[in-house]
Amino acid sequence: MKFSLEKSIHILDRTPAVLKTLLRNLPEDWTAPNEGPDTWSPYDVVGHLIHGEKTDWIPRARIILEQGEKQPFTPFDRFAQFEESKGKTLNQLLDEFESHRTDNIKTLESLNISQADLTKTGIHPEFGAVTLENLLAAWVVHDLGHIYQISRVMAKQYTNEVGPWSQYMGVLK
Amino acid sequence: MKFSLEKSIHILDRTPAVLKTLLRNLPEDWTAPNEGPDTWSPYDVVGHLIHGEKTDWIPRARIILEQGEKQPFTPFDRFAQFEESKGKTLNQLLDEFESHRTDNIKTLESLNISQADLTKTGIHPEFGAVTLENLLAAWVVHDLGHIYQISRVMAKQYTNEVGPWSQYMGVLK
Repeated sequence: MKFSLEKSIHILDRTPAVLKTLLRNLPEDWTAPNEGPDTWSPYDVVGHLIHGEKTDWIPRARIILEQGEKQPFTPFDRFAQFEESKGKTLNQLLDEFESHRTDNIKTLESLNISQADLTKTGIHPEFGAVTLENLLAAWVVHDLGHIYQISRVMAKQYTNEVGPWSQYMGVLK
Repeated sequence: MKFSLEKSIHILDRTPAVLKTLLRNLPEDWTAPNEGPDTWSPYDVVGHLIHGEKTDWIPRARIILEQGEKQPFTPFDRFAQFEESKGKTLNQLLDEFESHRTDNIKTLESLNISQADLTKTGIHPEFGAVTLENLLAAWVVHDLGHIYQISRVMAKQYTNEVGPWSQYMGVLK
């Protein structure tokens, strides 16, 4: 499919509710474990999504629209959540993510992005010039990628319990 | 984590709502495409989940509890949804899945499964003896595996649109 701002918002808008429906009030056996050293639990991922709402997607869209390639994006801190989530429950993080996302979609809509705006460019600190369309599509794929990750991490908690099925289930590979 | 019937039901119980939150009322650009030849769209997957509710998990649990290894499981039809979903909207399939799942969880609870029951075995037509615990854990992992699959299939619709980000997003690989 071709990029559509409206169809992107359809996804961005529902991600907080998807994560709440998937994770809210679950025992920590499902939400605290990860996939091994240097991997993230569902709890870690929700903290990471919050940090993205605060420092990544909308701030970078503003840089593209207001400054273009003159001002490279601020590098994103992939480990911020390990400090920022401290002392918070997963339910609190889910609410916090929803609140930031609601605000950011309002901001996104208020930017009145035109077709011409979508071709404007900014500089990513790792891989150079990207368009506003690339950035907004990446925001959507990033949401779906973390739903993908969370469901995989949860599935793996039953790797041994499924017995012979483990060979036949791609999510456990 | 060790298998727990209660913690398994926590997941089984919420899958229909997760899929509704993720898919309901989306444009078909998100829900009808697949990942290429012989792969499934989100629409196909929901039909497959319905067929599993009707012919797979609870019927197999009953075979284990009532007949043990005397009666191998009926092979599962992985393509039934291509006929059974015909003429139905995705919203209809989501409701149908929810209805079957609600009934099946009631049935599961009514079976009053004991610790001893969990070690009882049945014969899978492809890989032989499995315990009731394996079967119920596989039901949970199967749910999570299809949430994993659906979010990946949706993400891939924007593979080109993300531009340079495609190299950095595992879900697009």
